[in-house]
Amino acid sequence: MNRHELVNLIKERQSYLCVGLDTDITKIPRHLLSHADPVFAFNKAIIDATKDLCVSYKINTAFYECMGIRGWESLQRTVEYIPSTHFTIADAKRGDIGNTSTQYAKTFFETYNFDAVTVAPYMGRDSVQPFLSFHEKWTIMLGLTSNEGSKDFQLTPSGDEMLYEKVLKAGMSWGTPDNMMFVIGATQSAQLAYIRQLVPDHFFLVPGVGAQGGNLQEISAVAMNKDCGLLVNASRSIIYAGNGEDFAQDARVAAQALQQEMAEYLDVALAAG
Amino acid sequence: MNRHELVNLIKERQSYLCVGLDTDITKIPRHLLSHADPVFAFNKAIIDATKDLCVSYKINTAFYECMGIRGWESLQRTVEYIPSTHFTIADAKRGDIGNTSTQYAKTFFETYNFDAVTVAPYMGRDSVQPFLSFHEKWTIMLGLTSNEGSKDFQLTPSGDEMLYEKVLKAGMSWGTPDNMMFVIGATQSAQLAYIRQLVPDHFFLVPGVGAQGGNLQEISAVAMNKDCGLLVNASRSIIYAGNGEDFAQDARVAAQALQQEMAEYLDVALAAG
Repeated sequence: MNRHELVNLIKERQSYLCVGLDTDITKIPRHLLSHADPVFAFNKAIIDATKDLCVSYKINTAFYECMGIRGWESLQRTVEYIPSTHFTIADAKRGDIGNTSTQYAKTFFETYNFDAVTVAPYMGRDSVQPFLSFHEKWTIMLGLTSNEGSKDFQLTPSGDEMLYEKVLKAGMSWGTPDNMMFVIGATQSAQLAYIRQLVPDHFFLVPGVGAQGGNLQEISAVAMNKDCGLLVNASRSIIYAGNGEDFAQDARVAAQALQQEMAEYLDVALAAG
Repeated sequence: MNRHELVNLIKERQSYLCVGLDTDITKIPRHLLSHADPVFAFNKAIIDATKDLCVSYKINTAFYECMGIRGWESLQRTVEYIPSTHFTIADAKRGDIGNTSTQYAKTFFETYNFDAVTVAPYMGRDSVQPFLSFHEKWTIMLGLTSNEGSKDFQLTPSGDEMLYEKVLKAGMSWGTPDNMMFVIGATQSAQLAYIRQLVPDHFFLVPGVGAQGGNLQEISAVAMNKDCGLLVNASRSIIYAGNGEDFAQDARVAAQALQQEMAEYLDVALAAG
């Protein structure tokens, strides 16, 4: 999916919501455990209940990998089930020397046909570049993450800037607003306005709303750009909104609350833009 | 496997060689392609031919992931086939927020029963900590990598040190020499003596010998400690040493050349220690 298509979806659906499918078999409703593939049964129900409210689904690969081969089967069924009208993200945080990163890029862009994959920057340019050479595919590089550990390195001085600033500037020079996004945590409100000034055009994937405590209104007010420029992810607060027979309906209600807020913020931003 | 057992293996086998199973189906001898699982058939032959010469096998997960489910099947068969007298490393370079890193730790330590997994540090302490809570399992954190891109962030100033120094010091405070190792690239010869001074006790996993050009003699002279403290990895220069019917014998010859060099350096170091 290219940028033009993504921006159009956001406008049509009045949403920049990404639903995170961090599906943990120990947390899904017990009645699903009799299915041949309970994780896929859960994801299918969540997708059916939320697809008109979101523009993207993000699959956190860790939750699938830890189940071994049947986890990868659930992942494959899920990504094949997501409608082509949704931007698909493999939240895999890969990154290695060039010939290995090429294999990771093939994994997520070809074997599983995701639109985007998250990538860790520590190993530098030649670890990121292989992901950027795929047509209409996206690299989402870690910038400033939502967790406490962001203080350990990302928010430490690197010359006369913070490390995350150096990383963002490097990422901007490696990719373009058409093939590179950045992960910017929703909990980093003190930095958000500055980051948008530093990176005016790129999309941000913003995790940390919901279970991690980030505030959607604040993020939207300071970090939206003329093309929206945001994909705000919520995982646990949507998919585990309920835990009974009606879990998918509960997920829909949680997703709808976010989407309705987003529609308001989009109106304001697009009217101003 | 604990540190005491690993050090004993190194002394017994007179080797600190780690053979990297970066097995690419497009590069293995063509006569293997008729096997039901060509990647496993290749790995099995390499393991049979090299197991008395090395103390460790490192599986680069990217090469398996890119083949989808049958790649994970090959990976599982391979890790199950490696003798319990070898230290097994999942070279996966994972790292995410705490609850996700816990899933990755379960993946490699429980689902696949590796001894160790490589971890990327960018997201800080709470992204690494979950890997450290498993008994007699090891976290191998990226310190200073062997690739050109190490100059982009790792070798840039962070306060009055380099970023990789900050990362190594942080890693030393998070783990111990009994559950934490560091990746230090063989191509970083200018920094190796200093790094060993900074980190006297931990094991280093040293990739970059062979195809990437690192020099075994130099590494061993400056970075060995009283327990050896090195696992030197070679992948392509061993596993693709030959490409015919005799590929496993060719791999053995390449591994043996490294092992014989290592035996000399161990004699010198252990005599001095």
